[in-house]
Amino acid sequence: MTKLVASIVTVGEELLVGQVLDTNAAYLAAELTRLGIPVVRSWTVGDDKEAIRGALAESMRHGRLTVLTGGLGPTPDDVSREAAAALIESNLSVDTAVLAAIERRFALLGRDVPAGSERVASVPDGFDVLPNSRGTAPGLWYEADNGSIVVLLPGVPHEMRAIFSEHVVPRIRALSGRTVIAQRTLQTAGIGETTVQRQIDAISHLLDPDVVVAYLPRLHGVRIRLTVTGEEASDRLDAAERHVRAKLGTAVYGCDDDTLEGILGDLLKRRGLTVAVAESCTGGLVLHRLTNISGASSYVMGGIVAYSNVIKQHQLGVDGDTLKQFGAVSEPVAMQMADGVRARLGSDVGLSVTGIAGPSGGTEEKPVGTVWLGYADDHDTRAVKHQFGRDRRRNKDKSAIAAMNFMRQILLQS
Amino acid sequence: MTKLVASIVTVGEELLVGQVLDTNAAYLAAELTRLGIPVVRSWTVGDDKEAIRGALAESMRHGRLTVLTGGLGPTPDDVSREAAAALIESNLSVDTAVLAAIERRFALLGRDVPAGSERVASVPDGFDVLPNSRGTAPGLWYEADNGSIVVLLPGVPHEMRAIFSEHVVPRIRALSGRTVIAQRTLQTAGIGETTVQRQIDAISHLLDPDVVVAYLPRLHGVRIRLTVTGEEASDRLDAAERHVRAKLGTAVYGCDDDTLEGILGDLLKRRGLTVAVAESCTGGLVLHRLTNISGASSYVMGGIVAYSNVIKQHQLGVDGDTLKQFGAVSEPVAMQMADGVRARLGSDVGLSVTGIAGPSGGTEEKPVGTVWLGYADDHDTRAVKHQFGRDRRRNKDKSAIAAMNFMRQILLQS
Repeated sequence: MTKLVASIVTVGEELLVGQVLDTNAAYLAAELTRLGIPVVRSWTVGDDKEAIRGALAESMRHGRLTVLTGGLGPTPDDVSREAAAALIESNLSVDTAVLAAIERRFALLGRDVPAGSERVASVPDGFDVLPNSRGTAPGLWYEADNGSIVVLLPGVPHEMRAIFSEHVVPRIRALSGRTVIAQRTLQTAGIGETTVQRQIDAISHLLDPDVVVAYLPRLHGVRIRLTVTGEEASDRLDAAERHVRAKLGTAVYGCDDDTLEGILGDLLKRRGLTVAVAESCTGGLVLHRLTNISGASSYVMGGIVAYSNVIKQHQLGVDGDTLKQFGAVSEPVAMQMADGVRARLGSDVGLSVTGIAGPSGGTEEKPVGTVWLGYADDHDTRAVKHQFGRDRRRNKDKSAIAAMNFMRQILLQS
Repeated sequence: MTKLVASIVTVGEELLVGQVLDTNAAYLAAELTRLGIPVVRSWTVGDDKEAIRGALAESMRHGRLTVLTGGLGPTPDDVSREAAAALIESNLSVDTAVLAAIERRFALLGRDVPAGSERVASVPDGFDVLPNSRGTAPGLWYEADNGSIVVLLPGVPHEMRAIFSEHVVPRIRALSGRTVIAQRTLQTAGIGETTVQRQIDAISHLLDPDVVVAYLPRLHGVRIRLTVTGEEASDRLDAAERHVRAKLGTAVYGCDDDTLEGILGDLLKRRGLTVAVAESCTGGLVLHRLTNISGASSYVMGGIVAYSNVIKQHQLGVDGDTLKQFGAVSEPVAMQMADGVRARLGSDVGLSVTGIAGPSGGTEEKPVGTVWLGYADDHDTRAVKHQFGRDRRRNKDKSAIAAMNFMRQILLQS
């Protein structure tokens, strides 16, 4: 088969008024790219049968895989099925198996079958049904003679994602036949894009020439996406990953959907360590991120948000003279905060953040964005300084990430 | 003039691989809607001159206002200018005033003028230049004979937004002539969509029949968007807002871009009160949200994240027998946490959250999503219970919002 490319069509008035971000389009774009199918176009249209049909027709004319989300609900506003039927000039009829599945679903919930269910169970002739394990409206799949494919999925994100991964991905994989694509994204922290790129350039002679490396910078750190196509793609990807990890060392904290807080949680659990955090400028963000992980209560004891100096003294035992002499944003205060929170809360590890988030409060010596991080355990107390920018929210985010990464690096070395 | 409708075209490969969410499209959709210009279509295309020209041409054929973002940078990948020139079959030439502005900008920064600046300063004949106060690439504006308008804006969000509000909005306002549109979004918390709708239905006889009311639910609470078109729109909007506020009372916490934490900060500052927070299940999120507000250090003393019962006892003075008898997620513990954090940190107001975020840890009596909020001040200590759902992250978010709203409601009544 010729190389498949994709278009995405998202349907919904709420997208055209800017009320919600189009996360479905971003999800589908990322997943199709991961499958090795480039997305060449994305449309957003309202609940308008002719607009939907037009977008589908243009994409189909180019022989693409078209994935549409939205407009499959039970109300007369939901016209994606009608548009798809018009597209291939076929009729809509109620699929009794789909209707029965909907009736079963509501019977189990002890509720009446809602109005409009026959609409939801209507399928354009020529389309296959892709069952919906999370809701009522099934996905629909059509292959045209020119090799183009039209897939309709409901707009509710978790239903869309379930049908996509359970039914669309296997069908796409079957189509792609022997073309095997393997892809992995390595997550890094504490290292800039230029450095990452230079380090990988330095080992480029070691990498399989077919490995495509992409750099995806974001606030949380640079991601490195490795893609390999063809025979033994998976083994060659593993080899490439080993070379990159060997070069970058602990700057790589995980891959694909790993988060810094999740990795840190695994590390603490494995070592049997508990942590407590003393936060000033991050105002609770480090603790919030750590406790986003399910099961965090087994290693996060808690923490103290010490926004005022009085609290740094009374709740964390920071020395008043040290505060006077060095200021709250300083190496000794960061260290005393880490020691103090560890001692007061009785944890194995103490972590601290003190800085000037901005936009005001900076001085010439300590401009906005100056942040000290402290770490304390049984053997050692230390601190490190960062200089971030002028934006309050970004400074909080960057400080929280840097603090988690600081602790991770120390734990890996100890 | 006939009623103007709009299309949005966003340009960038990064959008087609799902690497970033298309916040520009959402911003433009919201702003155009606010201006009373319905957005009927949105496209995303790669850095492909013919794809860009095609999208612009289709939109122009329908006589629309088309706003494009992206593809105006200095590299040969950036081809939106070329596409626009091809669209109206005109030539690109360097605009000396734009080039001089770029040179001045870099001279001020003490840096060399970067390669590609002539490209950035190129303007298709027939297009007006919209100056960029935040960066180098200017916006471009074209009005066709059929009344359609094409606007090109850079893809960097803060530059795009600056040009849009400084230059595009005034030009659109001038075009719309006497058609005046006034719009305001009221923000509510602690009240469901059905209740909001029922309450407003009950006062519908008081509202100007031309007022369009839209309900925009989100996690943080239902937003109510009021739109009035025509003569004296602004006064009629004010009248409608007064009726809605009179009916809903303190459930309305603000309008347009107000946040709960910002409103709460204003309230605390106005009363000269300080606050401290004791958090269990929210793990620092309430403090994080409160300290997102610039200047929060004048009223947020800090707080204690007490994830373990030992810390609830030692750091907050919660009674061990109470914990044993009622459990950590209970009315008396929420009240003791609020009292304790207030006493220990020396604040005027103490706020507390204790609950079961999930996904595990629930019991039949206290299922996942059970949350107690506590409030304490000089006169009074009280607590309130909420029952949220099964999702950990949503439970943290909902609990933090409910806690801030709980405090706001009490402060308003006292």
